[in-house]
Amino acid sequence: MHKGLIVQKFGGSSLANVERIQKVAERVVSYRKKGYDLVVVVSALGDTTDELIELANKINTQPSEREMDMLLSTGEQISVALLAMAIHKLRKEAISFTGAQVGIITDSSHTCARIIKINCDKIREELKKGKIVIVAGFQGVTLTQDITTLGRGGSDLTAVALAKELRADECEIYTDVEGIFTTDPRIEPKAKKLCSITYDEMLEMASLGAQVMQARSIEVAKKFDVPIHVRSSFSENPGTVIIKEVKRMEDVLVSGITLNKTEAKITICNVPDRPGVAAKIFKELSGKGISVDMIVQNVSHIRSTDISFTVNKVELAKAIKITKKVTQSISCGEVLQDEDIARVSIVGVGMKSHPGVAANMFGVLAKKEINIEMISTSDISISCIIKRKFGEAAVKALHKKFGLGK
Amino acid sequence: MHKGLIVQKFGGSSLANVERIQKVAERVVSYRKKGYDLVVVVSALGDTTDELIELANKINTQPSEREMDMLLSTGEQISVALLAMAIHKLRKEAISFTGAQVGIITDSSHTCARIIKINCDKIREELKKGKIVIVAGFQGVTLTQDITTLGRGGSDLTAVALAKELRADECEIYTDVEGIFTTDPRIEPKAKKLCSITYDEMLEMASLGAQVMQARSIEVAKKFDVPIHVRSSFSENPGTVIIKEVKRMEDVLVSGITLNKTEAKITICNVPDRPGVAAKIFKELSGKGISVDMIVQNVSHIRSTDISFTVNKVELAKAIKITKKVTQSISCGEVLQDEDIARVSIVGVGMKSHPGVAANMFGVLAKKEINIEMISTSDISISCIIKRKFGEAAVKALHKKFGLGK
Repeated sequence: MHKGLIVQKFGGSSLANVERIQKVAERVVSYRKKGYDLVVVVSALGDTTDELIELANKINTQPSEREMDMLLSTGEQISVALLAMAIHKLRKEAISFTGAQVGIITDSSHTCARIIKINCDKIREELKKGKIVIVAGFQGVTLTQDITTLGRGGSDLTAVALAKELRADECEIYTDVEGIFTTDPRIEPKAKKLCSITYDEMLEMASLGAQVMQARSIEVAKKFDVPIHVRSSFSENPGTVIIKEVKRMEDVLVSGITLNKTEAKITICNVPDRPGVAAKIFKELSGKGISVDMIVQNVSHIRSTDISFTVNKVELAKAIKITKKVTQSISCGEVLQDEDIARVSIVGVGMKSHPGVAANMFGVLAKKEINIEMISTSDISISCIIKRKFGEAAVKALHKKFGLGK
Repeated sequence: MHKGLIVQKFGGSSLANVERIQKVAERVVSYRKKGYDLVVVVSALGDTTDELIELANKINTQPSEREMDMLLSTGEQISVALLAMAIHKLRKEAISFTGAQVGIITDSSHTCARIIKINCDKIREELKKGKIVIVAGFQGVTLTQDITTLGRGGSDLTAVALAKELRADECEIYTDVEGIFTTDPRIEPKAKKLCSITYDEMLEMASLGAQVMQARSIEVAKKFDVPIHVRSSFSENPGTVIIKEVKRMEDVLVSGITLNKTEAKITICNVPDRPGVAAKIFKELSGKGISVDMIVQNVSHIRSTDISFTVNKVELAKAIKITKKVTQSISCGEVLQDEDIARVSIVGVGMKSHPGVAANMFGVLAKKEINIEMISTSDISISCIIKRKFGEAAVKALHKKFGLGK
């Protein structure tokens, strides 16, 4: 009985040791027994990738990106082989493939390659033979056979891209949490699991710090309408389904609240108020590989203004150096930095048509005497930069105010 | 200044940690600076391969051989990437390749594949650009892109095969010993390093237990006259050169003495003395994958005889089971086993024309009151099975008798 095709992706924490690998095998086999065709995408075991990066850095603090990909891609290759063995042990047929072997062709941007095309012939062939096909996530190959990787969380992208290409009925993303929550349950124990969420909301949640799924993979899923189901590999409970549109009661404005403590703020004082200045600063930063997140510029007074923006803390020192160099050349004022910040955000498609949501958010923070240092908004989210120590309190207060614990 | 092409192979112990990888990089770069083109073949770091095998066995005690190759080939892939990074650190250009990427095409006998052909175009192209080319040893790929491995010590084979294909001026095998010794220096401190040895002698030494180089790779080197230099990665001293013919003083009969304690003896008593009986027994064993080493059958009396043979201890239980089953069907007598044995062998092309060598060997053992349980001879070697506990004493006595310590 053919029930359809499911792509299942298991992250590193789901494969952290022998017992967990066996559990994953059992789950995969249980789906096979129900009659599904299965393509399984896996990440490297546990912290393997981080360990390999550490090893590389001991040898060369600036390793060649091509060689880095050569190194890191071994992590997923180990996983596919072991999972195949575990499935064989349960007396089901399975076959493993590297990204190169299944023809996941990428450009040559090593360490953050983009998928150009996937030739699924080999996978289809093995599925036809009744085999469970296991594919190494996170990796691909250029047209000249160089091994590439797809960037952090790239296994999600492999799964989504394969689900799209194979027209899978569902793409299950197995992780160590039960699904997407209204906020981080470690901060607010009253956080509730969402049954469903839209691609747009998930995208905001992912890029705002809810580290459940890679943002790029959600973009691809949205673009091609790939139905995603984020769920736990440690339980049988359904998780959160990510879909195009969620039908909800009219009064649900906010779906989730995120907290991000990985950023630092840079402020450039007295920036000359003439065209092209901001462009020059941010072009220089992006040219040096610095990813700038939130940018805020105030209304200008007396022909000069202040510009604030956030970068990942890891890149702060580098960003400050570059910023100071540029700003000197265009005679700005001081460059200030602040690592002691947190970004708290509310996300929800419902707020599109409700301008009062922002005011509500600011009101809650004011009541808790939390000062807002920067504000940034999108169609479906509002983010505030606040002092780091107030992060958790802000999340709790907002969670309550918008009725997410109910 | 172009000086020629050298293939260098570094084993796992030469790459056991970050410092050793850096040392290997320094050595490679020093050759580059002298003007040599270099192809470097590496094994997996330290005990990686054994650790991966152990991990696989925890998941499935009878892992699929295809998946085993998928798993084990990651070891060498890690090595090539790290060595490339270490060479980059020394500001020399280097590029790493997997076996698949350089086109080492093998048959599909997973875990012990044979090389069918090598397409060296990619290597030549990179050498032309002035790069040091680093190739993952031990692995290849089938015509249908399945990853294969070449069996234990397979990196030696990769190196020799590449040296042959690229017509290298020399193939250096770097290991953790200074070269080939007259016998194991841990047993006989007076053992001397040999400056040179013939392929045939080395082949006997390798298959008789001197674990410096894989036997198959020596066969290939012999077949294609690839000049081998076995030497230590921890010193600058020259090691042992393996060549076609060694010009020696007439009176050097024996080049080396080996001791092998990995075998066990099986004896089948009262085997019916009619044609085809031995064939049946050994066909059954080889059919089940048991590799039989020494076989001795005595002159028969009264229409029956005893057959003794040795197998690897690891396979003893399996071999005994198979042997008992076969011998019952052809009404033989008892099947005996003995793990308490050692094989001591003398090797030397010089003994070809000197029939007295065997008698000399037996005389030495008799004088030490060491009983000989089995004898087997080849053109250039004589092996005796003796009680395990006498192994070291036999080696020392023979080493002295044949004047190897001088």
